[in-house]
Amino acid sequence: MTEPVDAVPRTGSISLDRILSAIGPPDGADPDDVRRHLDDLTKPPGSLGRLEGLAVRLARIYGDPPPPLRNRAVAVLAGDHGVARRGVSAYPRKVTVQMCRNLATGGAAINAIAGAAGARVVVADLGVDGALDGVPGLRAHKVRRGTRDMVEGPAMTREEAARAIEEGVALFEAEVERTHVVALGEMGIGNTTAASALAAAYLDRDAGEVVGSGTGLSPARRKEKVEVVRRAVRRIRDVEDPLDILAEVGGLEIAGLVGIVLAAARHRRAVVTDGFIATGAALATVRLCPAVRDYLFASHVSPEPGHPIVLKALGLEPLFDFEMRLGEGTGAALALPILDAAGSLLREMATFSSAGVSGPDDEPEGGQP
Amino acid sequence: MTEPVDAVPRTGSISLDRILSAIGPPDGADPDDVRRHLDDLTKPPGSLGRLEGLAVRLARIYGDPPPPLRNRAVAVLAGDHGVARRGVSAYPRKVTVQMCRNLATGGAAINAIAGAAGARVVVADLGVDGALDGVPGLRAHKVRRGTRDMVEGPAMTREEAARAIEEGVALFEAEVERTHVVALGEMGIGNTTAASALAAAYLDRDAGEVVGSGTGLSPARRKEKVEVVRRAVRRIRDVEDPLDILAEVGGLEIAGLVGIVLAAARHRRAVVTDGFIATGAALATVRLCPAVRDYLFASHVSPEPGHPIVLKALGLEPLFDFEMRLGEGTGAALALPILDAAGSLLREMATFSSAGVSGPDDEPEGGQP
Repeated sequence: MTEPVDAVPRTGSISLDRILSAIGPPDGADPDDVRRHLDDLTKPPGSLGRLEGLAVRLARIYGDPPPPLRNRAVAVLAGDHGVARRGVSAYPRKVTVQMCRNLATGGAAINAIAGAAGARVVVADLGVDGALDGVPGLRAHKVRRGTRDMVEGPAMTREEAARAIEEGVALFEAEVERTHVVALGEMGIGNTTAASALAAAYLDRDAGEVVGSGTGLSPARRKEKVEVVRRAVRRIRDVEDPLDILAEVGGLEIAGLVGIVLAAARHRRAVVTDGFIATGAALATVRLCPAVRDYLFASHVSPEPGHPIVLKALGLEPLFDFEMRLGEGTGAALALPILDAAGSLLREMATFSSAGVSGPDDEPEGGQP
Repeated sequence: MTEPVDAVPRTGSISLDRILSAIGPPDGADPDDVRRHLDDLTKPPGSLGRLEGLAVRLARIYGDPPPPLRNRAVAVLAGDHGVARRGVSAYPRKVTVQMCRNLATGGAAINAIAGAAGARVVVADLGVDGALDGVPGLRAHKVRRGTRDMVEGPAMTREEAARAIEEGVALFEAEVERTHVVALGEMGIGNTTAASALAAAYLDRDAGEVVGSGTGLSPARRKEKVEVVRRAVRRIRDVEDPLDILAEVGGLEIAGLVGIVLAAARHRRAVVTDGFIATGAALATVRLCPAVRDYLFASHVSPEPGHPIVLKALGLEPLFDFEMRLGEGTGAALALPILDAAGSLLREMATFSSAGVSGPDDEPEGGQP
C-alpha cells in the first residue's frame, strides 16, 4: 500500500489515462436472454418488480447467473476541506479526524450497519488534515492535508486530483480479489459543500437548487452556504474539462471515490452509491468515463435537494428513501443484501418446467366439488 | 407437531382466547430514553432518518439495545380457496400444491431471497387441496382441503378459522426459541381475492377500491373479480365480529398467519408484513387484538390497490416500493437486514463522549492557514 505523502503530487495522470481506456461496457450476458430466463422462473412474469431489473443489470456485469455477492466492502474515504473554514458545516473541522478514529475502531454508524449487511468497512485517509499515521485499520492514502478554499482558488491542482483518483484505484485493487461489490462511503466535514459545487458545475444548476442543510445547518447558515457555492462555481464558469472541475471544487475523498468507481468498473464489479457526496463522486466519474454508468446502482435518496438531481442526471433510480443524511456509506450498505437477493433469483430459482409448476391458465378451471 | 386432519375442526377456540388475553403492549424500553440514547451516538441527531424510528420501536419490543436479529424466519403458509374456481386468478388452482413442493425443495423466489437475507424459510400447509403428506421440509398443519366458496357461504366455519389460527400459533411456538424476528409469507391461488374481501369488509370499502389484478389478470377478468368480492362482502354485510369476518371471507393460510402474528407478539418478537395478503392477515390480527399493532413492521407496498389502504389503516409506513406482487414473503425478507441494521445502531455505535468526537460547533472555526 502507498505511504502517506503531504502535498507532494506525483508526476501526472499516466495510470489514470490507462485505467480510463481500459473500461468498457458490461458484456457478461445479453439482457434479452436474461429477461427470458427471468420469465421462465417459477413466478408470474414481472412479479418481482424492480428486483428483476436489478437482476438483469447484475447479469450484464457478472454473467448469468451472477455469483453470490457475499464479499462486500464499504469503502469509506475521508478528507478535509479548506472551505469548511467558512462555516459551511454544523460541525467543527476537527470532527473529520475524530470520526476517522471512530470509524477505524468500529464505533461509527457504518460499522454497525455494514455488520448487519454482511459487509467489511475499509476506511482510508485520502486527505485528512491531521495525523492519522499508525491508526490500526485505517488505510493511508493521504495526498495532502485537506483541500484549499474553493472560493479563493482551486481546491486541488489537477495533479493532486489525479493523484487522489489513483490512490482510490490503488485502494480498490489492494482489496479487489476479495470484493464482489463495493459500496461508496465518505467522511469529511464540509463535503456537502464540495458535492453541491460539483453538482452545480457539472449540471449547470444554480447553487440554490442543489445546496441543502447538510448535517443540520440553520436556514440562515444554509443561505451563506449557497453563497459560498455560488461564488466557487462562478469562479470556474469557463472550466469544462471534467477532471479540472473535480480539482477546482471537489475533494480529496471525492476524487478517491472516483478512483474506486473506475477500478470497480475496470474489474467488472458493481458499485453502489450512497448519499449526495458519494453520488456526486459517481457523477464526476461518469463525466470522466461514461462507460462506468452501467456499473452503478443507486441505494437511497437523501433530503439534500441536489441528490435527486444528480441521480436523475445519472439515470439512476434510488431503491429507497429513509430520510438518511449521514453519509459514511450507511445507505449504500443497506442496499447490498437487496442486490444480492436480486442476483440470487437467477442463480437459485427453479424454472416452471424443472419444478413441474403450471403456467397461467393452461388448463380449464371448475368441475371439482 | 400436529398431524394433518381433513375437515375435522377441534372443539373450539379456548387456546385462542388464552393467547389473546396474554398479549400486551411492548415495554422493553421507554421510547424517550431510546431517543436520548440515539441522540448521544456519533452522528448528527436524526441523520439516520427512518432507521432511528425503527430502532426505537425495536428497543420497545426487545429492550435497549435489542439483540442481533440474526435468527430470522420467513413463515410461508399455504392454503387453497374455494373461490378460485370462479376464475379469479390467472393461474390454475393446482399451482398451490405444485408451488408447495417447489417451496419445500428450495426452488421458489422466497428461497433465493431469504438465503440472501440470512433467513430460514418455514413452509407450512394450512389448507392445501392436495396430498402433501411426507413432503420433506413441509410442516403439516392442514385444517381442511381448501376453503369453501365465499360467494355462496362462509369460506370457513368459525371453528375452522380458530383452528387455523391455533395451528399458526403452534407452528410459531415450535420455532420460537430459535427465531428473533418473523417475516410473513403465503402461497395460495385465489388468495388476493380473500385479502380483498377482508380489506373491504374490515375497512368498509367497496370492492372496486381494493381489488387488483393479482398475479396478472386482464382488465376484463379483474372486473369479474371485483364482482365476486362485492357479492361476498354484501353477503356478510351484517357480520361484525372480526373472527367471523375472517371465517366468512378469509383463508386458511391467512388465519394461520394471524396465529403467527399473535404468537410472535405473545413472545415479544417483531413481525414483518409482506404484500397485500400477509398485510391483510395483520389487519385481521389487529382487529382481534389491537395490542399486536406495536409488534408489526411493514416491508414493502405492492401495486395491489388495497395494499396501501390496509397499511394506512394499520398506521404502518412501508420501507420500500419495488413494484413486487409475488407474495411468499419476498418483500418481507428483504426488510429483515434493514431491521437488524436499525437495532445494531443502539448496540454497536459509540457515543460522542466515548469516542471523543466533538458535537456541533462547540469550538469556533477559522484561523488556520
